[in-house]
Amino acid sequence: MPNTPDNSSQATWGGRFSAPPSELMAIYTDSQHYDRAMYAQDIRASIAHARMLARQGIISDAEATAIVEGLEKIRQEIESGAFVWQPSLEDVHMNIEARLTALVGDAGKKLHTGRSRNDQTGLTFRLYVSDHCKAWLDLCLHLCGVICAAASDNRDVILPGCTHLQPAQPVSLAQHLLAYAGMFKRDAERIVDMLARVRISPLGAAALAGSTYPLDPESVAAEVGFHGIYSNSMDAVSDRDFALEALFVASVIMMHLSRLCEEIIIWANPAFGFVRLPDSFSTGSSIMPQKKNPDVAELMRGKTGRTYGNLVALLTVMKSLPLAYDRDMQEDKEGFFDTDRTVASSLEIMAAMLPALQFDAESMARACHKGFINATELADYLAARGVPFRDAHHITGKIVAVAEQKGCGIGELALDEMQKISPLIENDVYDVLDYAACVRRRETPGGTGPASVQAQLKDFQNWLATFK
Amino acid sequence: MPNTPDNSSQATWGGRFSAPPSELMAIYTDSQHYDRAMYAQDIRASIAHARMLARQGIISDAEATAIVEGLEKIRQEIESGAFVWQPSLEDVHMNIEARLTALVGDAGKKLHTGRSRNDQTGLTFRLYVSDHCKAWLDLCLHLCGVICAAASDNRDVILPGCTHLQPAQPVSLAQHLLAYAGMFKRDAERIVDMLARVRISPLGAAALAGSTYPLDPESVAAEVGFHGIYSNSMDAVSDRDFALEALFVASVIMMHLSRLCEEIIIWANPAFGFVRLPDSFSTGSSIMPQKKNPDVAELMRGKTGRTYGNLVALLTVMKSLPLAYDRDMQEDKEGFFDTDRTVASSLEIMAAMLPALQFDAESMARACHKGFINATELADYLAARGVPFRDAHHITGKIVAVAEQKGCGIGELALDEMQKISPLIENDVYDVLDYAACVRRRETPGGTGPASVQAQLKDFQNWLATFK
Amino acid sequence: MPNTPDNSSQATWGGRFSAPPSELMAIYTDSQHYDRAMYAQDIRASIAHARMLARQGIISDAEATAIVEGLEKIRQEIESGAFVWQPSLEDVHMNIEARLTALVGDAGKKLHTGRSRNDQTGLTFRLYVSDHCKAWLDLCLHLCGVICAAASDNRDVILPGCTHLQPAQPVSLAQHLLAYAGMFKRDAERIVDMLARVRISPLGAAALAGSTYPLDPESVAAEVGFHGIYSNSMDAVSDRDFALEALFVASVIMMHLSRLCEEIIIWANPAFGFVRLPDSFSTGSSIMPQKKNPDVAELMRGKTGRTYGNLVALLTVMKSLPLAYDRDMQEDKEGFFDTDRTVASSLEIMAAMLPALQFDAESMARACHKGFINATELADYLAARGVPFRDAHHITGKIVAVAEQKGCGIGELALDEMQKISPLIENDVYDVLDYAACVRRRETPGGTGPASVQAQLKDFQNWLATFK
Amino acid sequence: MPNTPDNSSQATWGGRFSAPPSELMAIYTDSQHYDRAMYAQDIRASIAHARMLARQGIISDAEATAIVEGLEKIRQEIESGAFVWQPSLEDVHMNIEARLTALVGDAGKKLHTGRSRNDQTGLTFRLYVSDHCKAWLDLCLHLCGVICAAASDNRDVILPGCTHLQPAQPVSLAQHLLAYAGMFKRDAERIVDMLARVRISPLGAAALAGSTYPLDPESVAAEVGFHGIYSNSMDAVSDRDFALEALFVASVIMMHLSRLCEEIIIWANPAFGFVRLPDSFSTGSSIMPQKKNPDVAELMRGKTGRTYGNLVALLTVMKSLPLAYDRDMQEDKEGFFDTDRTVASSLEIMAAMLPALQFDAESMARACHKGFINATELADYLAARGVPFRDAHHITGKIVAVAEQKGCGIGELALDEMQKISPLIENDVYDVLDYAACVRRRETPGGTGPASVQAQLKDFQNWLATFK
Repeated sequence: MPNTPDNSSQATWGGRFSAPPSELMAIYTDSQHYDRAMYAQDIRASIAHARMLARQGIISDAEATAIVEGLEKIRQEIESGAFVWQPSLEDVHMNIEARLTALVGDAGKKLHTGRSRNDQTGLTFRLYVSDHCKAWLDLCLHLCGVICAAASDNRDVILPGCTHLQPAQPVSLAQHLLAYAGMFKRDAERIVDMLARVRISPLGAAALAGSTYPLDPESVAAEVGFHGIYSNSMDAVSDRDFALEALFVASVIMMHLSRLCEEIIIWANPAFGFVRLPDSFSTGSSIMPQKKNPDVAELMRGKTGRTYGNLVALLTVMKSLPLAYDRDMQEDKEGFFDTDRTVASSLEIMAAMLPALQFDAESMARACHKGFINATELADYLAARGVPFRDAHHITGKIVAVAEQKGCGIGELALDEMQKISPLIENDVYDVLDYAACVRRRETPGGTGPASVQAQLKDFQNWLATFK
Repeated sequence: MPNTPDNSSQATWGGRFSAPPSELMAIYTDSQHYDRAMYAQDIRASIAHARMLARQGIISDAEATAIVEGLEKIRQEIESGAFVWQPSLEDVHMNIEARLTALVGDAGKKLHTGRSRNDQTGLTFRLYVSDHCKAWLDLCLHLCGVICAAASDNRDVILPGCTHLQPAQPVSLAQHLLAYAGMFKRDAERIVDMLARVRISPLGAAALAGSTYPLDPESVAAEVGFHGIYSNSMDAVSDRDFALEALFVASVIMMHLSRLCEEIIIWANPAFGFVRLPDSFSTGSSIMPQKKNPDVAELMRGKTGRTYGNLVALLTVMKSLPLAYDRDMQEDKEGFFDTDRTVASSLEIMAAMLPALQFDAESMARACHKGFINATELADYLAARGVPFRDAHHITGKIVAVAEQKGCGIGELALDEMQKISPLIENDVYDVLDYAACVRRRETPGGTGPASVQAQLKDFQNWLATFK
Repeated sequence: MPNTPDNSSQATWGGRFSAPPSELMAIYTDSQHYDRAMYAQDIRASIAHARMLARQGIISDAEATAIVEGLEKIRQEIESGAFVWQPSLEDVHMNIEARLTALVGDAGKKLHTGRSRNDQTGLTFRLYVSDHCKAWLDLCLHLCGVICAAASDNRDVILPGCTHLQPAQPVSLAQHLLAYAGMFKRDAERIVDMLARVRISPLGAAALAGSTYPLDPESVAAEVGFHGIYSNSMDAVSDRDFALEALFVASVIMMHLSRLCEEIIIWANPAFGFVRLPDSFSTGSSIMPQKKNPDVAELMRGKTGRTYGNLVALLTVMKSLPLAYDRDMQEDKEGFFDTDRTVASSLEIMAAMLPALQFDAESMARACHKGFINATELADYLAARGVPFRDAHHITGKIVAVAEQKGCGIGELALDEMQKISPLIENDVYDVLDYAACVRRRETPGGTGPASVQAQLKDFQNWLATFK
Repeated sequence: MPNTPDNSSQATWGGRFSAPPSELMAIYTDSQHYDRAMYAQDIRASIAHARMLARQGIISDAEATAIVEGLEKIRQEIESGAFVWQPSLEDVHMNIEARLTALVGDAGKKLHTGRSRNDQTGLTFRLYVSDHCKAWLDLCLHLCGVICAAASDNRDVILPGCTHLQPAQPVSLAQHLLAYAGMFKRDAERIVDMLARVRISPLGAAALAGSTYPLDPESVAAEVGFHGIYSNSMDAVSDRDFALEALFVASVIMMHLSRLCEEIIIWANPAFGFVRLPDSFSTGSSIMPQKKNPDVAELMRGKTGRTYGNLVALLTVMKSLPLAYDRDMQEDKEGFFDTDRTVASSLEIMAAMLPALQFDAESMARACHKGFINATELADYLAARGVPFRDAHHITGKIVAVAEQKGCGIGELALDEMQKISPLIENDVYDVLDYAACVRRRETPGGTGPASVQAQLKDFQNWLATFK
């Protein structure tokens, strides 16, 4: 028998109240339409609480068993769609509790012993944040792996490394991609640090002051996989730092993705032509037959906005709130849910799209010529032959000007053209000007040289292996 | 016959594409699950466009009639729930267009003539923002009226006006409430100004460069009630200022509400006891029988956060976007929808709750005593008797200290107690110390004096009347 | 004689205080180190207040004259650097008042009659915001004029208009630039609307409740050029909407500039080569001789961040503040000052840099070829010859593919190459494919066609003329 | 001889430039007026770099010695005020380098070997952030200690613990205060985690691609006390995560402080009267002799806004930036400097003010009566005597109503008054209703009971000891 609507919920606290809640208020304060997403976490927390109550002798083993079986049944009802959600019951917790009482009778009512909605909601939400941030961690690791694979495949592709979006020095595409792996590695590290603070249970705080029952909240924390409990009950029910931290970490992840998306978008423009978008991750135009748009990258870049917004929203909510629990804090969940959907789907889709991008080594090579990115090497060449660097810099400037006029790269100038400007230049200059040679010479740790890139890849593999 | 799912939408631009869109991408970029909220605006805009096409001889009158009838039928299908939304058709516009073609055949296809999704979406969304911000305007005006009524009812109630949340000078509750009316009046004025910029039609811009058809976009703008068209097609399809402005105006409205909520929350605490919450807008506790919580005010204060967040989100989205339309801009709608729900419901519920608040004049009077808020009057009294103000200030300080020790107000001290400190004080001091008299003396324009309050109320009525 | 340091300021309210202010607190709450920027506005407001006091018979004409002369002298002292600012006097107002009393004796003390620091600061800051936002308005108008001039000079230059940063359809550079003029025109309109709300005087509100003096605050407002006074004294001293509105308008201005900067940065990359940066607005590298970096555009794009941040800051400050004045509101000024510097200098430097940019019509023309942006025209050409549009779209796709393989534009294919794919194509196709012809055909109002551009320019001139 | 102005700086990269930089641009891009704050960090980093260059044989030991001595001299010049800062030299790094060359000749020029401004600025700023965040850590620890001391002193003071700012259950003031200690402990933990990511050196990345010199960047990192180096050079010069993380951590610290400030402000209102502000941290009014304002708490609450704003600013700056270094990133410093000043001074001043607050145990006790916060205990008492809890809740409600009418607490009702409503109530009820007894019964871990509070204090002491 499925649960049926019941409007009596308010009666539990309404004794002193002569008027029913305004319908406007009921709609305004209702949270079950979104917080039902946390049903699994609520049930998990309640099972752990019930078992503890039995261990402590507060309820009987039989009652605990009935509660656990009832909750398992409710989980099935929810997952099969049989569960009837009742807006009048306000939130996920009351919906499940009411159903539990309908299923197992008075034992169900005892589940609330030594617990209030303040600490119950707190634990449920922390479990939810913990589960989902763990998923972000896995997605970050996966994306790092995908990037490393792409880097490994593109060690010999050379493009103009830019500063100020102006060609600066040649780098391997592997080096360029691995910069992003470094970002998502830091994101992963931040998640790990954060989880240590998320996985603290507020249970036992009750409404705000602790309970008069001989509870063992440490054991509940351990049973749900948390590291410990709050040291102070008022802090426990009024802390939302963990959610803020998750929203911040997510904002930085999206910021990193927005940078990668920006580059994909610029690179896909035919003037660059560094990348061809896979059909499966592009859209066209019903009007313009030539169009192939990087919609996914654009939308992902745009979704950075909402993660920033959700962070600002909760920071605003929490400012100046007096102790302990205030209803304002109910605003913590929707923003996290939205950010979670955004971050998880964005990481997933980037990991799927990246291997499908076709990098165009030829366009990248052409761009190297246009940018005169081996000019530094020529100046160094002259400096090594005894020309003061400032003079070498000027001579190089003149040679760049000649190449610019001719519409070619420096290395495509004839030797005598260069010698007209500086007789110190000899035939070996061409080896120096070679873009691949430029890349090869930069073997400082972290540099773009092939040995350095190889070392970076190996370090990443080792690091990823620590999570297995 | 209802419309049926159809997966062929991509084919309109997919000719050059060898692979179908990734399912991940389809989910990621889908907007119909939320932008269907704009169906009425899309239909309104399309009807106006069709009529213009006929007026300009681009389609026949018969075709226009068929289109208009088809769109009216679709509107009914949507409102009756018969319409089948197809995620594969991406957005509200394609869903309606596909259905139109199914209903009226080739004429339906011609609706798109001289129009692209860029300018179509732009007009639809502007109509939506216009409709909903007009609703905010009405709600602001209504709330102003409600506040004025409450002020009118409480002209003789006196409470301690605070600065720094410290009692400063006595004010009438009417004066205090009318400060909020002033805020919502400014909000209304901002909405009026904003609507002049929202009600500009981008139609005719087509994809970005204008159309080759002899369109008359001015007439479309006029037909949907807009003031004019964009002067530049590239600006037309890439401008989202109007949405930003709406999100900003909404943020200020919520900020104003948050201030009123903060005061309700503080006043409802028994230490203040200035206000008794109506049962219909309060919640209790199943555990603590004495509880009556200002949940609505708290939640409203908290919802300020999400409106700030939505503003930050869209500001972030728009930063650095190159011309013209970019897919990032799809992120403009969900934030506005969320803010719209928040602002509209908050204004409505505040207007419903405010008349139900019971102000406790007695508690307010008691608080006047505790705050010594007539101390300024005593100093002025002494100054008027020739005591230099600095000395008067010191003498008053001493008398305050005596009253503080006795746990009474200044006006409750016996005359000889005051004369011990300053013999200049005589029996007429009690008239000066009277709180109502303090209020009565402040009749500068905008002051708390009764004539000033009366003038404020009248000005408000006149202003509100201009909207009728 | 210059003013000399004086530590007695606290004494004016310190009578009841047994301990001096903590030095930490003095430093923490000091505002004179930044609010002295408003000295001219403080003096202007005080002069108007003094004259009104005399008109109302509250002070004598001689006193008013002494005050006005004293304040004029102080203005000179400040502007010549002779004025000694005293941190112990907390803010600009107390510094000036103390100096005034030193200069003109007791008359100086009377300036404070019927006025508190709450309404005094309020008027001073509004005058400052008014003055500076008026300067923004002038800078927006100037920039619009500069853009129009650049557009007028570049009516025949054609570049690929993009959507999704993918070439879409050819547009004139004039059209592209005028999109930005449209943005700054809206900014100007927002400033005009906003100034109507900034120019409202709070004077007469005194501390919070109005004054017992027979003031005429309307005449003070008129004398400083304001439109009126607040209708409610408590609103008057606790409203900061005007500052929020200025910060929002500034954020949108910077957002618009960030878009233009983004395009300049992308266009300056040699792969695009659409623009050559003037030496005077570029930087180079001491290492890389080929470098020419768009630092100004980058920094301006980056400075968008701080204007958003300042808006968020003040929104955060104002949330949930109870009536009336709270010290939190002191945080209103530094953010505005910073935003003002940013917006004014950015508008000025963009107006100086833009005319110095060298647009490279040849690179733009080359990019048109790469993007196949006349593909739509070919499809329309076929459609006009009776090919169903969907088929025309497919045929065009095939022809694009051939051109892509050959590395040329569609219009550079030989006629027989096209005819192989569709025999309907004839020699007149080349006229259709001509990029300039594409542009010429789009003459809808606001479109890129030359007559439309001419009309846009004329409308702008007319609009700009209304400000003269 | 002090250094003298020199305008030749641009010459180092200006060879290819025919026009000097616009003065507008020079002002707009100048950073030395604020980044000179990092002089000590720049010198520290340069000394470590010079020593490494010598160790690697890239420069001679004599050159390294000359550089180190020159830099030490410059440090003294700066600290004594003798150093002449030159705006034309753009930033702190160029100012110091130019002076070094003036002091030690050619050796000075060699300091730049294998280093660019991109990685140099990166390391300098990270050192600065590291130094200052370490100071925040110390201040958090200090504040925790101060709070613990205040808690320890107030273990027997009982006040109404609130939820929804409505009295809920009695708690000890120690418990209430320790909730804040818990917050600042988490802040400290976040700083520790963050520092591990701040203390990573980008040196060796050079402009973006690594260096051709045989550098040993690991040893430089170790010498400046950092944990390691970036694994990728492009990430190294374009990462600002560490600054974002600092701005976030600071925002949460200020949010925590804003909550404490809010409570101080409410508690200082005479209706509450829970706290008397120390004269040294209050301000009065020159007009209103009774005033004592919590300005410090208000201003601190307000300053939360600017820390949020600075976070939003940098998040905005970093969004969508392509690799590697972009000039936008110069916007990273001023926001951090401002946040640093705000956080450090706020933590310091709160630690100074808190011990000076006088808590008024009597007012707190009075508020307990008003709130009926022992109602839960009465319901439990009845439940323990066999009354179903729902009935007990109703009976209690009736008794609360009687007490409310009489204007007394529940425990002040005569026994027979209670027995009229429920004959089950006996004389032992008064022990149950005693507020101290309510507190004593809540001994769950983290609860408000005295043993729990004692345990909390001990845990804090142990934790603080780990930092010594």
